[in-house]
Amino acid sequence: METSVMPATKVHNFSAGPSILPQEVLQKAALACTNFNNLNLSLLEVSHRSKDVVEMTDHAVSLVKDLLNLPEDYDVVFLQGGASMQFLMVPYNLLRTDGTAAYVNTGTWASKAVKEARGLGNTEVIASSEMQGFNHIPKGYTIPADADYLHITSNNTIYGTQYQGFPECEIPFVADMSSDIFSRRFDASKFSLIYAGAQKNMGPAGVTLAIIKKGILGKTGRYIPTMLNYQTHIDKDSMFNTPPVFAIYVSMLTLEWLKSNGGIDWIEARNKQKAEMFYGELDSNEMFEGIAAIEDRSRMNATFLLKNKNLEEDFNKMLKEANISGLKGHRSVGGFRASMYNALPPESVQVLVDVMKEFGKKFG
Amino acid sequence: METSVMPATKVHNFSAGPSILPQEVLQKAALACTNFNNLNLSLLEVSHRSKDVVEMTDHAVSLVKDLLNLPEDYDVVFLQGGASMQFLMVPYNLLRTDGTAAYVNTGTWASKAVKEARGLGNTEVIASSEMQGFNHIPKGYTIPADADYLHITSNNTIYGTQYQGFPECEIPFVADMSSDIFSRRFDASKFSLIYAGAQKNMGPAGVTLAIIKKGILGKTGRYIPTMLNYQTHIDKDSMFNTPPVFAIYVSMLTLEWLKSNGGIDWIEARNKQKAEMFYGELDSNEMFEGIAAIEDRSRMNATFLLKNKNLEEDFNKMLKEANISGLKGHRSVGGFRASMYNALPPESVQVLVDVMKEFGKKFG
Repeated sequence: METSVMPATKVHNFSAGPSILPQEVLQKAALACTNFNNLNLSLLEVSHRSKDVVEMTDHAVSLVKDLLNLPEDYDVVFLQGGASMQFLMVPYNLLRTDGTAAYVNTGTWASKAVKEARGLGNTEVIASSEMQGFNHIPKGYTIPADADYLHITSNNTIYGTQYQGFPECEIPFVADMSSDIFSRRFDASKFSLIYAGAQKNMGPAGVTLAIIKKGILGKTGRYIPTMLNYQTHIDKDSMFNTPPVFAIYVSMLTLEWLKSNGGIDWIEARNKQKAEMFYGELDSNEMFEGIAAIEDRSRMNATFLLKNKNLEEDFNKMLKEANISGLKGHRSVGGFRASMYNALPPESVQVLVDVMKEFGKKFG
Repeated sequence: METSVMPATKVHNFSAGPSILPQEVLQKAALACTNFNNLNLSLLEVSHRSKDVVEMTDHAVSLVKDLLNLPEDYDVVFLQGGASMQFLMVPYNLLRTDGTAAYVNTGTWASKAVKEARGLGNTEVIASSEMQGFNHIPKGYTIPADADYLHITSNNTIYGTQYQGFPECEIPFVADMSSDIFSRRFDASKFSLIYAGAQKNMGPAGVTLAIIKKGILGKTGRYIPTMLNYQTHIDKDSMFNTPPVFAIYVSMLTLEWLKSNGGIDWIEARNKQKAEMFYGELDSNEMFEGIAAIEDRSRMNATFLLKNKNLEEDFNKMLKEANISGLKGHRSVGGFRASMYNALPPESVQVLVDVMKEFGKKFG
């Protein structure tokens, strides 16, 4: 069977997204392409309204609720269009025609969210780290009590920053958690709306998770096109129109993998261990320097530079020899980025750390 | 060879969508889940901006252009959200704030398209078969010369009707071809915009094709949110944000399968053959009656009723014994529906015809 064969060479996949998924998930995904649930049909060619697909989707929803310990008054839907479509759906659903939206700007994705909100109505950036190259998470700002909602981006993939704690927020609190959902314990009940593109910790590209507190919709006085209205998708259990079945299935498998290994407590400890391994080396190795402020460092995406840029080719060569993939920094920041999402094993981080050590010995 | 590894039991998959895909496509899709392009990485865990994925997407675009014989002045993009999101994007991009959109209403999906256009501006239904239960395609109407565009639905999955020819249209002509694109030869140059959810003839659920004539955008005087603007996706070659990589890949494989077997001429002849086999039996078997007007019958979805509804259970039992799947009619029409999309082999239609014959002998 082609699906039981592991890749011949182990690649250490530090890709920033779409990113590494557990091997057992990939094996099961492959099997479903030819024979889903022993139906003798591929998952790619069965109706989304068939019993097996509906049950699979329901199971994915309950895994989300279970893993995030969601209170009863939250709806969970699977959408399309990525976080970029959520940048639009959030103000469409929550920004009153005469209201104001409040945003914290912590990077490229937050800026794009601001732009879409501005297209619909009054939008204030109440805090920003843009002047400092988005190298930290702003703190100590005042959240306007009369704003319709506050929007934040919990982890910033490009700059390597992450909220270590969330501000106390008395107004509806909205978070783009695309790149760190399911990576650590947090109190979901503090949020009115959470959304996340799947392609980091949850699954493959092509599906977006939205978690919506009951009672927050229908208050804007705004006409909302059918597909942009969260209520449409809530009312039809994510099946108003054909959902991205395969992407939901792979997400469900990934959440099953997470749960069966010990859930959020297990993955949080493992992600902490990986981050400590990496940042420990970064801080003790004189060849490198970090980009993000130490107190806001992301456990998901570690951004760093070579102090001597002339050695970049040498470092890249050593990475390649060690089968390390996806370490190139985002073009807007440069340097390197080690994305250490849930499915990346600590062994891969160790291989990277070993290369950094060796690089230091050789060129230091 | 598409038949190299067949499932243990051959299921005749008449599902209305997501629907049958070629066996060789499913095999290749499975392989890509564990090892894409011999990278030792899954397609589900590599960056959409990696060389291999960009080349794969470009190849999918050129297959679309090639198979549809598109003139040079058309852009091809892969989007998310299904035809339902296109119902919104079309008026957002083409309906001037003080203009009028013209729609032909031929069923549930056309009605939904009308609804979204009405949400944005002045929208006229210039012809409709609603009063006759959408059992035919309206003809002989006048297309208003001052409308911003005319929108039609080329094939109506629920009612089993299909345009056998398209009206002459002097204004921008828009078609939802979700359920019959790539099934027959047509003159794409007559259209300003064509869109199609993939999950019938092109691939799995989760990706939507849009074909846009150059020069038609940017004329509405309307603010268009970033993700709803076709220009956004054209400018970034479908990679403004993370595209649904796997669904694009399976679509590319399906289009490769189509091309390697002889392209549109081959599939049109095969689809014609299948339709003649089925409708030939339907018209000669006294147990059944068709729903759609004969001259507008769809080659993709054949809708029919049992004259004696008390025999429904018996017919269903015989279908099941013959491993025929997905023949239940849509809940809004009832009866039966045989969806005969591109990948359905003529052999499966023959099995259905044989069951209908046997049913006639047994209960006639």
